[in-house]
Amino acid sequence: MKISVDRTVLLKALAHVQSVVEKRNTIPILANVMLEAKDGVLTLTATDMEIAVVERVAGVEVSRPGRTTAPASTLYEIVRKLADGAKVELDHKGGDAPLVLRAGRANANLNVLPVEDFPSMTEGKMPHHFALKAGTLRDLIDRTKFAISTEETRYYLNGIYLHAAESDGAKVLRAVATDGHRLARVEEPLPEGAAGMPGVIVPRKTVAEVRKLADETQDEVSIHLSDTKIRFDIGTVQLTSKLIDGTFPEYERVIPKGNDKILRVGKKAFADAVGRVASISTEKSRPVKLSVSRGNLMLTANSPELGQMQDELDEELVSYDAAPIEIGFQAKYLTDITDQISEQVEFHFADGAAPTIVKDAGRGDALYVLMPMRV
Amino acid sequence: MKISVDRTVLLKALAHVQSVVEKRNTIPILANVMLEAKDGVLTLTATDMEIAVVERVAGVEVSRPGRTTAPASTLYEIVRKLADGAKVELDHKGGDAPLVLRAGRANANLNVLPVEDFPSMTEGKMPHHFALKAGTLRDLIDRTKFAISTEETRYYLNGIYLHAAESDGAKVLRAVATDGHRLARVEEPLPEGAAGMPGVIVPRKTVAEVRKLADETQDEVSIHLSDTKIRFDIGTVQLTSKLIDGTFPEYERVIPKGNDKILRVGKKAFADAVGRVASISTEKSRPVKLSVSRGNLMLTANSPELGQMQDELDEELVSYDAAPIEIGFQAKYLTDITDQISEQVEFHFADGAAPTIVKDAGRGDALYVLMPMRV
Repeated sequence: MKISVDRTVLLKALAHVQSVVEKRNTIPILANVMLEAKDGVLTLTATDMEIAVVERVAGVEVSRPGRTTAPASTLYEIVRKLADGAKVELDHKGGDAPLVLRAGRANANLNVLPVEDFPSMTEGKMPHHFALKAGTLRDLIDRTKFAISTEETRYYLNGIYLHAAESDGAKVLRAVATDGHRLARVEEPLPEGAAGMPGVIVPRKTVAEVRKLADETQDEVSIHLSDTKIRFDIGTVQLTSKLIDGTFPEYERVIPKGNDKILRVGKKAFADAVGRVASISTEKSRPVKLSVSRGNLMLTANSPELGQMQDELDEELVSYDAAPIEIGFQAKYLTDITDQISEQVEFHFADGAAPTIVKDAGRGDALYVLMPMRV
Repeated sequence: MKISVDRTVLLKALAHVQSVVEKRNTIPILANVMLEAKDGVLTLTATDMEIAVVERVAGVEVSRPGRTTAPASTLYEIVRKLADGAKVELDHKGGDAPLVLRAGRANANLNVLPVEDFPSMTEGKMPHHFALKAGTLRDLIDRTKFAISTEETRYYLNGIYLHAAESDGAKVLRAVATDGHRLARVEEPLPEGAAGMPGVIVPRKTVAEVRKLADETQDEVSIHLSDTKIRFDIGTVQLTSKLIDGTFPEYERVIPKGNDKILRVGKKAFADAVGRVASISTEKSRPVKLSVSRGNLMLTANSPELGQMQDELDEELVSYDAAPIEIGFQAKYLTDITDQISEQVEFHFADGAAPTIVKDAGRGDALYVLMPMRV
């Protein structure tokens, strides 16, 4: 192959694909990006065997079609350090010959590995297809991903559970994540084509890569899926990922019904107060205690070594008129949720030892469940 | 003690002193800051037994003088998270009673430790005294600190060697650092009072703390020292540090004389090219090779796994008319130096295996020595 391409265009494509390459891996070819040039298009592919990212760059001057594989992060680093506006020539004579990169006076000879050894991820049939606005996809991810479990033994919790469901009679697309201590459930109106989709668990790394790519577009993201794989078409990028082969727990059972003690509180003032009283905790695992009574919310934290701290919210920011309650939560779990809430947090308590529901008082499409800690 | 102080003022002071507190230490009182209030002044002290930082905050409302010690980083975190513009009240009834912090509705009770247990660093006599502009001090530090050794066994190289010297007949204050692979020597006209000072080695952590403090002022920094201690008066902060008890090597012997092959090259283009060719190195320790001939500078790097890369500088940026030379250096060592150079780098070579001198072609007050690597 021999091509000429703008440095900026190539850099963007390399940034997309090299991101999926694992920095530490024992299979040399997985460190490489596959480059294929024909018909004015350069196709770049990288994979970690779980995720494959393919990007098609159009408008490339192809003077000799061909394909090869070269070290992804090295190629990315070189192109990143070339002057803005540079023209990059990639020249591969075939076989074991190095991939030659030329740009201005810079000249690199990169070792290649045979295209034949590059693992291809067979997509198989993907019978289900729907589309989401990039903004909607970002929203689904942002409001659930913090609750994804990192415990590898509970591999079926290491991703976002995406599925079609019914909510108050309306058909919805739901994203759910939980680590056993908290649960996030976010829904959007069911997009066309998603009705018969299987429930799938999208792995954490895939979620992170898709989230990054979704930042670069305002367009629709096209999603295809089967029981075992999912593909996201985002702009010029196609990301195909294996799904987690496991059964997501029946999360609806965890969501309490009939929590009737409702507290509404201004989000910013609440999050600030949580941050302040949590200063006293040396360990993350120590709870912040919420003492709620009519029109009043007090937060307390204490540490045997450091001391004790409390803060009270302005009455006008607090709305509560049920029986008094005391309940403790891990500070980080509270702020992970408030980070996703716009103006007002709504807590639905049962009692001080029972799972609590948290919502954005302004919108009904997200629901969080928090397990309390002993205080 | 009982005082009232602006949150912003207290925060700044706590930021200064808590920075010296070691996050992991086994002696509880070293995690504390000592607070002393009297005559409208709050004095804050923190120490790690090597460095003591004392800050005097004036204009504090002291309604009851007194002193105590409380956890430094917790106090700092709480004050940091208070609303801007808040008034902070610190109230300590004496003895084992907690230090009570009040601000708005927030209220913390911090465990205290007895003032008597707080280690005091006796300064002893500091017979030498001089002053440097904050900018000059920053400059001395920035242009040498990257060369400080991190090898703990060579403890006498774990700092900047500060001493009075003569340079071309002029009396100068010199800062020198070396890790055995490179050396940085920077000098300033000898300030008044520094003539009889002993050569002292200022430890790395002290250098870092002083550098941060020097960023906050344009005023003069007053420096006092003895054979064993140094004190920097920077604005309202006094930082006293032990010096490294060791003998700095006779560094002048390392600086080659008679290196007569002189290369001048544009700094930015050179640093960019070094960065580019170094992309090919997987290991930091692999050299970048400079091939210099009349009016020509080529840079090359190679890696058995990845391939090879070269770049050449525009002729108009290169000035050289001695015999051709090939010499290798670690990329990071080259860019650490060029980061401190304004427009043009000047290399003084002897041959491809000998120590090389690097200078800023625009100013004679800094000199760097680089050991070559086999290429």
